[in-house]
Amino acid sequence: MRLIVIVLCVLVIGAAFSAISQAPPQPAGPEYTKDGLLNFPKDYRQWVFLSSGLGMTYGPAGNTDGAGNPRFDNVFVNPAAYQSFLKTGTWPDKTVFVLEVRRSQSKVSINNGGRVQGELLALEVEVKDASRFPTKWAFFDFSDTFQAKAIPATAGCYSCHREHGAVDNTFVQFYPTLNDVAKVKGTLRGNQ
Amino acid sequence: MRLIVIVLCVLVIGAAFSAISQAPPQPAGPEYTKDGLLNFPKDYRQWVFLSSGLGMTYGPAGNTDGAGNPRFDNVFVNPAAYQSFLKTGTWPDKTVFVLEVRRSQSKVSINNGGRVQGELLALEVEVKDASRFPTKWAFFDFSDTFQAKAIPATAGCYSCHREHGAVDNTFVQFYPTLNDVAKVKGTLRGNQ
Repeated sequence: MRLIVIVLCVLVIGAAFSAISQAPPQPAGPEYTKDGLLNFPKDYRQWVFLSSGLGMTYGPAGNTDGAGNPRFDNVFVNPAAYQSFLKTGTWPDKTVFVLEVRRSQSKVSINNGGRVQGELLALEVEVKDASRFPTKWAFFDFSDTFQAKAIPATAGCYSCHREHGAVDNTFVQFYPTLNDVAKVKGTLRGNQ
Repeated sequence: MRLIVIVLCVLVIGAAFSAISQAPPQPAGPEYTKDGLLNFPKDYRQWVFLSSGLGMTYGPAGNTDGAGNPRFDNVFVNPAAYQSFLKTGTWPDKTVFVLEVRRSQSKVSINNGGRVQGELLALEVEVKDASRFPTKWAFFDFSDTFQAKAIPATAGCYSCHREHGAVDNTFVQFYPTLNDVAKVKGTLRGNQ
């Protein structure tokens, strides 16, 4: 009898962990080195996509490359924070955003007009971690590194997000699906 | 002793299933009604984002709205198919793509140039299901419904994807990260 119980338990545990291992990566939040540098979240392309813009004029990456092509901005957020936003209309502590900037191109394959995405140009991260940053949110530039320290809090990204973020330091006004959630939850700041 | 084993098993199983329940939805593939209609995958915004384009000229949705604004195309794929593509450079049976078409707008909040995403305009789905469709891949229009039958195989989307898809009926040439994977795996068709 005891053997049957143990065998059954092993089978069920095995099935459960097998199901977990098939799920995509689920980072709980920001991860730091011993020296306090933020590790780049390498699996961010499997996180939740919030929106894209082309040639937007705000933000540190500018709106065109050297050849005058407008740039695409893609924004991703960690899945746990996204789930929390759907329920509350705002961001929990340990939220991680990734801003991916890509070159745009026009004549590619059968595309004869408009713009499609190309080469990676820049990677930036915004983290909410109240116990670590006096400003609660901090910004990081990962364009040339996989480990980065926070950009100084005097940089323009801090004041711009603080003053113009429609929800808690973030530009939810540019994320159509979450903008709708924030409206319903009553968490959207007006006139941003 | 037997009691301890049982209690331990219950605790471990509980932890494992708790981890599963926190994971985002993991659709195994396309789901159909009894009548053979495809159910719209409502959680697609939590799937894996592949890329966006603005004003692209191919495809059934055209490139501008009635007011002359170019449209954004966002493409998502189900996570299981994405994981398989990373390993093999091609799509497994039961792959599901969602094409989301959105209005673009310029003057929104602090954005003074370029384009950001707005209102949803159209939803289309491409499914690989060899046992169900003689063409292996089938297309569906979900712009006005949550359950749809396949678009007839004589429609232009079938021949266009078949002739110009860089990998197995899909426009991987427009998805920068997967284009790189296909190059490494040797699955990219040339001259598409």
